[in-house]
Amino acid sequence: MNKKNYALGVFDSGLGGLTVVRELKRQLPKEDIVYFGDTARVPYGTKSAQSIVQFSEENVQFLLKHKVKIIVVACNSSSSFAISVLRKKFSLPVVGVIEPGAKKAIEVSKNKKVGVIATSATIQSGKYSKTIKRLSKKMKVVSQACPLLVPLVEEGWFEKKATFDIAKEYLLTIKKSGADVVILGCTHYPILKPVISRVLGRRVNLIDSAKEVACEVKAILKKHNLSQDKKRKGSCKVFVSDKPQHFKKLAKRFLGYNIGHIKKV
Amino acid sequence: MNKKNYALGVFDSGLGGLTVVRELKRQLPKEDIVYFGDTARVPYGTKSAQSIVQFSEENVQFLLKHKVKIIVVACNSSSSFAISVLRKKFSLPVVGVIEPGAKKAIEVSKNKKVGVIATSATIQSGKYSKTIKRLSKKMKVVSQACPLLVPLVEEGWFEKKATFDIAKEYLLTIKKSGADVVILGCTHYPILKPVISRVLGRRVNLIDSAKEVACEVKAILKKHNLSQDKKRKGSCKVFVSDKPQHFKKLAKRFLGYNIGHIKKV
Repeated sequence: MNKKNYALGVFDSGLGGLTVVRELKRQLPKEDIVYFGDTARVPYGTKSAQSIVQFSEENVQFLLKHKVKIIVVACNSSSSFAISVLRKKFSLPVVGVIEPGAKKAIEVSKNKKVGVIATSATIQSGKYSKTIKRLSKKMKVVSQACPLLVPLVEEGWFEKKATFDIAKEYLLTIKKSGADVVILGCTHYPILKPVISRVLGRRVNLIDSAKEVACEVKAILKKHNLSQDKKRKGSCKVFVSDKPQHFKKLAKRFLGYNIGHIKKV
Repeated sequence: MNKKNYALGVFDSGLGGLTVVRELKRQLPKEDIVYFGDTARVPYGTKSAQSIVQFSEENVQFLLKHKVKIIVVACNSSSSFAISVLRKKFSLPVVGVIEPGAKKAIEVSKNKKVGVIATSATIQSGKYSKTIKRLSKKMKVVSQACPLLVPLVEEGWFEKKATFDIAKEYLLTIKKSGADVVILGCTHYPILKPVISRVLGRRVNLIDSAKEVACEVKAILKKHNLSQDKKRKGSCKVFVSDKPQHFKKLAKRFLGYNIGHIKKV
C-alpha cells in the first residue's frame, strides 16, 4: 500500500484533541484520520512527566497498528514532555502543539506580552515559555496552570457560573499583566473560549493552536511527499480507552458535528 | 510468619482513602498498614465499571505482594463495582465502604430520608440506594453525582468560593428533599465537610464511612482470629502510582499529621 494512503494518527488524553481533528478535516479533507483518546487515564496534566511519557509511547504504539503516516500529538502535556522521546523512538514524523501555538502568539502580540494557560504539567515543563523566548527574545511570558478546567470540560460544564468563577481566579495574574495574547495551551480550553473571553475582555486575542497544528501537518506531508492525492473524502476512526458513550455525547461540542462509531479498546 | 503479624491492605484511587487509614490507626493502633493510592489513574469515579474492576484487581495484586491479611477497599467507586469480583478472585477477607456507611445512615436518620452524594460511577451503580432499601424498606433515598468534587480536593481547593458554588449546585436537589442525613459516598468528601455543611445547614447529619469501615475491619479480624495481639505501635507504608511529592503535601489534610516516606511504584 502506497504510504500516501495511510492515515493521520492523532492522540490526546481525552476529548480535547478533537478540536485538532476538526481543523485537520477542514484543511486536509482528503486524509483519513485515526484518533485515540485515552479516556481511561484522563487527565494527563495532573500526572508526572514520567507517566505522561509512558502513556504517550503506548498511544503511539496503538496508532501504529492502524497504518498511519504521521503522529499528531494533540495533547499539550504530552507535547511538553514526550515529543523528543517519541521522535527518537519512532521513525515517522511527529508533530506537537507547542511550537505552532507559540509562533502564532509571537506573530499576533503587539505589546510583546503573552499569557499562557495550560495544565500543571505543561506549565511546570516551561516548554511554552522556553519556545517563545527561543523564537523571539523580546517577548515577556506570564504562565498560569489551570488544572480544574479539564475536568470542567470533560463534565460538560461549559458555561456554568462556577466555571466562570474558577476561570476568573486562574486568570487574575494574566489579566493584571496586560498580556494582549493568551495561548490556550490545552486542547480542552477552546471549548471554554466564551468564558475565558468574558473574563479577559475582548481585546485579548486567544490562540487556539489547532489551526496552526493543521498547517504544520499539511507542510510536513508535502515535504515528505506523503499527501493524499486522490479525489476523495477522508474517513475518521475514533478509538477511546474508556466510556465511548460519554465521549460521543460530548464530542459534538468539539467537532461541531455528530461523530460516527466510537470503539473502546 | 504468623498471619496475625500481617498488615491491613488498603487501596484507593488517590488520596481519599487516607481518611480510612486515619480511622484504622485510631481504632487498631497495633496493626501495620500498607496503603496504595492509584494516583496515575485517578479519578476512578468518572471511568467505566469495566475499567474500575480492572484497576481494582491490579491494586489488590499489588497489595498481596506485601503480606496483607485483609483488603480494605477505601474507594467508593471500587466498592460499588468490584467488591464481588474481588471476593470471588481472592481468598482473603475484602471490606468495602458502602454497607458500613448505609447502616450508619439508617441508624441516624429520623425522618427516613437519606441523601447520597458520590462520584458518577458510584451513583450510576445504584449501590447505596439498593443497600439502604435492602436493610430498611421504609427509607427514601435521594442521590446526586458530584464528579467535580474529587478534582477540587486533589487540587487542594478545600475552601474556595468556587468549591462552595459547585457544592451548592450539586446539593440543590438533596437540600430540597429535606433529607436529614447525607452520606459522603466518596472518601474525598470528608475533607469538604465544612463546605458541604455550610450548604446543607447544621441540622443535616453528614456520614463519613471511615469510622464505620474501621469498626467492621476490627470485627472481621476478631472473627477470623487475625488481630495483632502484640503490644506495639503499627507502621504505615504508603505507595502511590504517580506524584509522591504532591501526595505527601496534601496527605496531611487527610491524616491530620505528617506522613512518612512515600514510594512510587
